[in-house]
Amino acid sequence: MRRIGILLSGRGSNFVAIAESIASGRLDAEIAVVISNRAGAPGLEIARQRGFPTLAIPAQGREREAYDRVLIEALAQHGAELVCLAGYMRLLSNAFVQAFPGRILNIHPSLLPAFPGLDAQHQAIAHGVKIAGCTVHFVDEQLDSGPIILQAAVPVLDNDTAETLSERILKEEHRIYSEAIRIVLTGAYRKEGRRITCD
Amino acid sequence: MRRIGILLSGRGSNFVAIAESIASGRLDAEIAVVISNRAGAPGLEIARQRGFPTLAIPAQGREREAYDRVLIEALAQHGAELVCLAGYMRLLSNAFVQAFPGRILNIHPSLLPAFPGLDAQHQAIAHGVKIAGCTVHFVDEQLDSGPIILQAAVPVLDNDTAETLSERILKEEHRIYSEAIRIVLTGAYRKEGRRITCD
Repeated sequence: MRRIGILLSGRGSNFVAIAESIASGRLDAEIAVVISNRAGAPGLEIARQRGFPTLAIPAQGREREAYDRVLIEALAQHGAELVCLAGYMRLLSNAFVQAFPGRILNIHPSLLPAFPGLDAQHQAIAHGVKIAGCTVHFVDEQLDSGPIILQAAVPVLDNDTAETLSERILKEEHRIYSEAIRIVLTGAYRKEGRRITCD
Repeated sequence: MRRIGILLSGRGSNFVAIAESIASGRLDAEIAVVISNRAGAPGLEIARQRGFPTLAIPAQGREREAYDRVLIEALAQHGAELVCLAGYMRLLSNAFVQAFPGRILNIHPSLLPAFPGLDAQHQAIAHGVKIAGCTVHFVDEQLDSGPIILQAAVPVLDNDTAETLSERILKEEHRIYSEAIRIVLTGAYRKEGRRITCD
């Protein structure tokens, strides 16, 4: 297993970090296709410039399941074996999750289970935590809740805003996402309950 | 403000760490009294041996508010200005919290808001997090929910049990509790919403 399908909605900085890990030889994988629900997503343009197959699939009023069927079909056509969410701002249907069992990864800018959902860095600042971070996890049917593959911690500084904290977390995101993909692609892990440990 | 009242139910290792910080001159404070709801708590015996005023106040069927009134009275009699929970296994009544506004601290063995309540380290292992830690926070009317003063992170290792993780976290507890007490006693912090920052 080495062909990755990327889903993104925005600038896709985690996609770029993954592409660079592959280009530099640190990650043995291949980007099969980059798909966005937003035609104007900057990440899609970057993917085009880098010569990756890209697809814009706007929702156009389709219901979630119908949309996700199109998505599943597109990923299958490009031979994507592992799906990596990189700032993909749509909830996935159960049908999508079940179409790629144990083969969908997400990165979230908090130390889950703290601060799931939108604006995690802002939530962290408002809650007043002193340690923040990011999490790469398998995607299951609930939001930001699947088994955790890797996490990284960063300090929250007294003068941090959600923006400065986001930047600090993003550096760690770029580091651990590729590392987590490597773990999953090589299959060098075990799962006990929801606990993932490396072989 | 420098007189600390300690409440504990067990071995009170955080109490010992605080006492040692004071003895070594790292923390400018004084232990006014050590109180336990359990007469046989090992921490109470250690406090006696070290010459601190101690009190065992068993619940003896008293309701929470009635019990806490006895507790408030005992702390007041010993001139306790700051109350530090050190493994105190009873919920505090609102009346108690309101008797010491902004002057009750607790340490919890997780990176709150993750894993509040009992067996936090076991919860962390079962959830499969890769980063765990501990939190010193002001006590408010909800369980493990008040504004956070300090946190420390530790890695969760693949071969960790709740016990080995607890040991690693405990070392950090002993370090940050004294530091947080110092911050609160010197008043060198500001509070904005629930965010605490140091001056």
